[in-house]
Amino acid sequence: MHAAGRLELIAVPGLPQVGPGDDLAELVAQGLDAAGMKLCDGDVVVFAQKVVSKAEGRRVDLGTVIPTPRAEEVARQVEKDARLVELVLRESKRIVRQRKDVLIVEHRLGFVMANAGVDQSNVAADGCGEFALLLPEAPDQSAERLRRDLYERCGAAVAVIINDSFGRPWRRGTVGVAIGSAGLPALRDLRGQPDMFGRRLRVTEVGLADEIASAASLLMGQADEARPVVIVRGLNASSQSLPAHSLLRTPEEDLFR
Amino acid sequence: MHAAGRLELIAVPGLPQVGPGDDLAELVAQGLDAAGMKLCDGDVVVFAQKVVSKAEGRRVDLGTVIPTPRAEEVARQVEKDARLVELVLRESKRIVRQRKDVLIVEHRLGFVMANAGVDQSNVAADGCGEFALLLPEAPDQSAERLRRDLYERCGAAVAVIINDSFGRPWRRGTVGVAIGSAGLPALRDLRGQPDMFGRRLRVTEVGLADEIASAASLLMGQADEARPVVIVRGLNASSQSLPAHSLLRTPEEDLFR
Repeated sequence: MHAAGRLELIAVPGLPQVGPGDDLAELVAQGLDAAGMKLCDGDVVVFAQKVVSKAEGRRVDLGTVIPTPRAEEVARQVEKDARLVELVLRESKRIVRQRKDVLIVEHRLGFVMANAGVDQSNVAADGCGEFALLLPEAPDQSAERLRRDLYERCGAAVAVIINDSFGRPWRRGTVGVAIGSAGLPALRDLRGQPDMFGRRLRVTEVGLADEIASAASLLMGQADEARPVVIVRGLNASSQSLPAHSLLRTPEEDLFR
Repeated sequence: MHAAGRLELIAVPGLPQVGPGDDLAELVAQGLDAAGMKLCDGDVVVFAQKVVSKAEGRRVDLGTVIPTPRAEEVARQVEKDARLVELVLRESKRIVRQRKDVLIVEHRLGFVMANAGVDQSNVAADGCGEFALLLPEAPDQSAERLRRDLYERCGAAVAVIINDSFGRPWRRGTVGVAIGSAGLPALRDLRGQPDMFGRRLRVTEVGLADEIASAASLLMGQADEARPVVIVRGLNASSQSLPAHSLLRTPEEDLFR
């Protein structure tokens, strides 16, 4: 994976609102086609988590959620909706930190994140109830499936990243992060590579998929979903693949749990 | 700051090795000029920390560094060069975490980072001794100065970011982060903005400068410094400015110190 001196990021135009069962690769193919655009081999296609979750039917009607006593208790402590907290706890292995308005958990997939990614914003209420959106069941597999589908629909061998916005310790503001990927090394290992002066590099691993996820996030924005799919062109994605799951530290090697 | 549907990242070509006292803006102007390229109003110009530090003369001859007993002690514990540890401690307010090969500190500027950013790789040894490179003295001010210099040399009103690669808790791999910025809102506040369906956004602040820093890092690479300056075009940087320092959480609002 060697970037040349130029990168281009292009939002896929003309995407409709996404619903359960929608074929995202087909929607991308149609959007590009209508605009006279094409995918190229080596492109990285970044999907916002929300559209993947919607297509996979991960929307939950809050009216169907009955909080356990524990969820009620945590909800009181953090001052959040107990039904949302119930969903957060179902999606989590454990609570990492909590206080008023803050509920940071270890998601069942290993992500340490706020609210287990359960999101109440940008989910249409349809005028009939309240809904929340969960992360995809298995984002690396979703990315692999999207990659295969894009190859079938568009004839291009691309890499795929599913991104989401994460907060982090020490620094304010959320940044785009890869929760799923396929077809590229999510983690780029530079161990043993010499620097320009022959000294071995001390920074040995780069969170490549996270950097791409952040770049795409610049185009996606937050306040609307008009640009949920972004093409990153010029990275020359290698076929050497390491899924986004490899970006997660094991608890043993992590100094901050 | 509103991105259109397309972003372009362009590495400034033809930059020479940078040394103390070099005029970085002038080097950028020359590199662009020789390639028939121009800066545009609204461009964001991202400088790798290393070239800014080198231009500002932040290189330290390790032969001149005499470790204190405390530095010797910490160096034994983390198994690092005591002269490097001495520099790290001089640059830091306190140690946040330490163990073999790992020394995470709170930098005097507030960054929580490995080794206070003191870097032994990619610093030419000149055949006469060993050197380390410190972060710029005041990166937000460096960015502001570069911004003014670029306006003088190139006639374009740009924003400037100085980036570095940071590790982080929970996730493996380093990502590009903004340690200094000028001319753009490093932190983009979305509080109160409705989402597409009129619900107020729950994710309220975006680490804009960090996302740009990560994007630029994709082009800069790690193993060489051939591309230490990257232009990000298409973000339409507003003149509303909030320096990179505003990305730092106060200790009181941070749950992970």
